[in-house]
Amino acid sequence: MLTRIDHIGIACFDLDRTVEFYRATYGFEVLHTEVNEEQGVREAMLKINETSDGGASYLQLLEPIREDSPVGKWLAKNGEGVHHIAFGTADVDGDAAAIRGKGVRVLYDEPRRGSMDSRITFLHPKDCHGVLTELVTSAPGPRAEH
Amino acid sequence: MLTRIDHIGIACFDLDRTVEFYRATYGFEVLHTEVNEEQGVREAMLKINETSDGGASYLQLLEPIREDSPVGKWLAKNGEGVHHIAFGTADVDGDAAAIRGKGVRVLYDEPRRGSMDSRITFLHPKDCHGVLTELVTSAPGPRAEH
Repeated sequence: MLTRIDHIGIACFDLDRTVEFYRATYGFEVLHTEVNEEQGVREAMLKINETSDGGASYLQLLEPIREDSPVGKWLAKNGEGVHHIAFGTADVDGDAAAIRGKGVRVLYDEPRRGSMDSRITFLHPKDCHGVLTELVTSAPGPRAEH
Repeated sequence: MLTRIDHIGIACFDLDRTVEFYRATYGFEVLHTEVNEEQGVREAMLKINETSDGGASYLQLLEPIREDSPVGKWLAKNGEGVHHIAFGTADVDGDAAAIRGKGVRVLYDEPRRGSMDSRITFLHPKDCHGVLTELVTSAPGPRAEH
């Protein structure tokens, strides 16, 4: 069951400048940064609020590290903007299977590693009224803040 | 101060079909529907979770009621997808003024009426790394659920 808006994924050309925009304009601070080689992105997580399911909602700022990464190709086509939205669940495997059973294409056979050691998968935007939709199960235990 | 992700605004061609997609696929239910004549949209609010500032996070599904409305023009250009993101604040007037003072274009001179009698304004996407960004202060008191 999807119990929260986990994050909004925003693609940008320059992560440092975009992080600085969000800090200077709104006061949002970076909780975590990492490079995800498999996804081909450098990213920053900005925690906005906690949620009633015990999780939190973030902005996820994404800069491609390769032009041929999914985010790199998306940016070349669309320019900066909202790349995807993500819903949090305690059971990404079960929810992905149930959603696949309803005829929505799930992009990975098995969930892969996402931000902060979460497990993630994506739903095809053409099956979701144009919205690239991620499902995410956070890593167990307190989140490392670095 | 912006204290939550208030909603993700998603533009669609057919509100009823899109509402049914979110219900059938994820189990999300409609909390509220309304027509906003000024904005030129028919909309449905799907509550996803409550937030640590005492508010909540929603999906806002938007169907234009006029082709020449902002959402109608956006849909004609982009197709269905994420139209804007919204941050919640207790003081949309103060935050809009402060953000304007930082050189970000605020689209309205004064906040206007948004979903569920909230007060809203928008920031120019070209000043926000491509993201049309809304600021929203909820109506006081318990939210009418209809």
